[in-house]
Amino acid sequence: MDLSDHACDLHRRVRTRSPLVHCITNPVAMDTVANATLAIGASPVMAHAHEEVAEIVALADALTVNIGTLVPERIDAMLEAARAAQAAGKPWVFDPVGVGATRLRRATAQSLLALKPTVVRGNASEIMTLSGIAGVAARGVDSARDSAEAETPARTLAASLGAVVVVTGAVDIVTDGTRSLRIANGHPWMPRVTALGCALTAITGAFLAVGDDALSSAAVATALFGLAGEIAARDARGPGSLRVGLMDALYNLDAAAIRAGLRVT
Amino acid sequence: MDLSDHACDLHRRVRTRSPLVHCITNPVAMDTVANATLAIGASPVMAHAHEEVAEIVALADALTVNIGTLVPERIDAMLEAARAAQAAGKPWVFDPVGVGATRLRRATAQSLLALKPTVVRGNASEIMTLSGIAGVAARGVDSARDSAEAETPARTLAASLGAVVVVTGAVDIVTDGTRSLRIANGHPWMPRVTALGCALTAITGAFLAVGDDALSSAAVATALFGLAGEIAARDARGPGSLRVGLMDALYNLDAAAIRAGLRVT
Amino acid sequence: MDLSDHACDLHRRVRTRSPLVHCITNPVAMDTVANATLAIGASPVMAHAHEEVAEIVALADALTVNIGTLVPERIDAMLEAARAAQAAGKPWVFDPVGVGATRLRRATAQSLLALKPTVVRGNASEIMTLSGIAGVAARGVDSARDSAEAETPARTLAASLGAVVVVTGAVDIVTDGTRSLRIANGHPWMPRVTALGCALTAITGAFLAVGDDALSSAAVATALFGLAGEIAARDARGPGSLRVGLMDALYNLDAAAIRAGLRVT
Repeated sequence: MDLSDHACDLHRRVRTRSPLVHCITNPVAMDTVANATLAIGASPVMAHAHEEVAEIVALADALTVNIGTLVPERIDAMLEAARAAQAAGKPWVFDPVGVGATRLRRATAQSLLALKPTVVRGNASEIMTLSGIAGVAARGVDSARDSAEAETPARTLAASLGAVVVVTGAVDIVTDGTRSLRIANGHPWMPRVTALGCALTAITGAFLAVGDDALSSAAVATALFGLAGEIAARDARGPGSLRVGLMDALYNLDAAAIRAGLRVT
Repeated sequence: MDLSDHACDLHRRVRTRSPLVHCITNPVAMDTVANATLAIGASPVMAHAHEEVAEIVALADALTVNIGTLVPERIDAMLEAARAAQAAGKPWVFDPVGVGATRLRRATAQSLLALKPTVVRGNASEIMTLSGIAGVAARGVDSARDSAEAETPARTLAASLGAVVVVTGAVDIVTDGTRSLRIANGHPWMPRVTALGCALTAITGAFLAVGDDALSSAAVATALFGLAGEIAARDARGPGSLRVGLMDALYNLDAAAIRAGLRVT
Repeated sequence: MDLSDHACDLHRRVRTRSPLVHCITNPVAMDTVANATLAIGASPVMAHAHEEVAEIVALADALTVNIGTLVPERIDAMLEAARAAQAAGKPWVFDPVGVGATRLRRATAQSLLALKPTVVRGNASEIMTLSGIAGVAARGVDSARDSAEAETPARTLAASLGAVVVVTGAVDIVTDGTRSLRIANGHPWMPRVTALGCALTAITGAFLAVGDDALSSAAVATALFGLAGEIAARDARGPGSLRVGLMDALYNLDAAAIRAGLRVT
């Protein structure tokens, strides 16, 4: 099947099935993550207490775990949720926000990687840190590296984990270690809006929940999110209006826009 | 008094008195709750540490408690705040977000209900769960049930608690167990914006603070919030611009718009 | 140097150097703080775990600490981060949100003031509380006092701390105890959007990171933020669209707009 057909098909499934995506994410991102997930047609649920995550995973169609603004009291819940997803055979996405910045985040990332995420999504610095590339000092949570630099580390990481790795940047790379796709959708203002990477992580969870192939599901999610950003940018005056328009564009995506706009090679 | 007159009167009081609403709410919702409360003309204060909630309740005109994204370390603070509101005779609103999803939320809801909320506001699934309707499995935090199905459970719950119960949905139901009002204001895009229910909970607190009758105060808050959503929808292109326009519309509500738009029976 | 020239110069430095601002802030404000910091051209990083704050301060160019929605488990992290900033000679800004409301916030403020903030930014009530003015009962987190009333307390506080104090209100006052500047930029709708004070605190951190003189850096940050609000208000219909337009205006600020709009005396 052509990727445009596949994208339209997955998008229709998200809209009709409205998969429940359990998002364990940071408080900076929660608003944007929830709104983007609702706008694409899925249903978000946020829960990060150790006492309830396993019950939420049991109800959910996918799990996403994000380590931004990490606090130790949430780490057990992240691990428990990831174990529950793995045990139930439900897809889960790991978003290693700012993993290079601190020991706490690196150690947590290591524990989470051992629980076999279906997809890992990060910027070039984060993916390079995860790949153990020496000398990559991440600066905050925004990428100091180009996604092209991360392609080889991403492939290595994907192969070693048996996961799909998504590197977002000016050009996004989606790889399972063997096959790789490049996505040119997106807009330069998107990194000037906080939490859009976190929002894509949640939307990737929604597409994994309705698809059969993690590589193409992740690629479609990434491309559609970037496409919505491009559509929003047409009428935007800066990152504030881009964010608002992105939610509208995610909501209004349809087969015609998808076929006209997808830029995946 | 005609309900339109009453609505205009309560709205004017909120604008002139700017009641202080203490909101214990979840981090997904905090931004939207604070902005909606400010936009309607009230003053929000967020505080959820056990160590300070009693002092904040003492300053506040109303309290609202929301159990979304619940964590055990906040439960004591919720109970302490509700006890302080009850002891001081201040109105308080309980918002049982996702109560059907986990044991932690059900147990917390049970403890909170024992502290006699003035108003309970939730979607149909949440109200049916609270009413102890067997076999209602809530799915995430969005309602899987229609508000009409919840009318009888809502009446029963209201009568047993001595509280007003608000069920929000396509048509909202506001009942004290004896009297019931139905509100047709609102827009289908509103459930595609996160935390609007939580925002209504806070605004309900503001109207309780300035009104004498909990049933009509809750009904007016619910109707005006839905009306602001309708006004916003006229110029919106999707849930992103609806959210922005909702804040503008809440801010710009006036007697003329209220008289023209209220749909309460 | 003329203040307009200085403002253009500092603004250009923020845009080209993109200083990393470590924000320890409350969950109500995180979204707006991160987006405003990105929009002005700086790079925010949020981290508030005791286990990682020192590492984040070591990477950052400035620190900002905000005590809104305070919880005891974050206080140690705030103190540790402030100590690390002080030890490293990095500028740090203290934002005493709602300090008058509770004992917990007053005690925390006292501990933080002992760690010598570079700048303290608050509304009139907060600054008056900090100055130990008797009889100031803060009401929630919004100022019940006029900034002019806070001028003398602000000067006294600045002199005693050896810090710059910023009082935001209809007219903002920036003082180091000896010199004082008054800033007339801003718009009456700004207090109807939550967390804009918190956002200014973060932006002040960004300007301190690139400037040599705390008084003029804080004054420029305050004036440019107010100016962006004025620009946004031209096309806004209320606080919802003001907020969106503010992010666009912060992003689009340029030397021409700065020279035309600065109102500092």
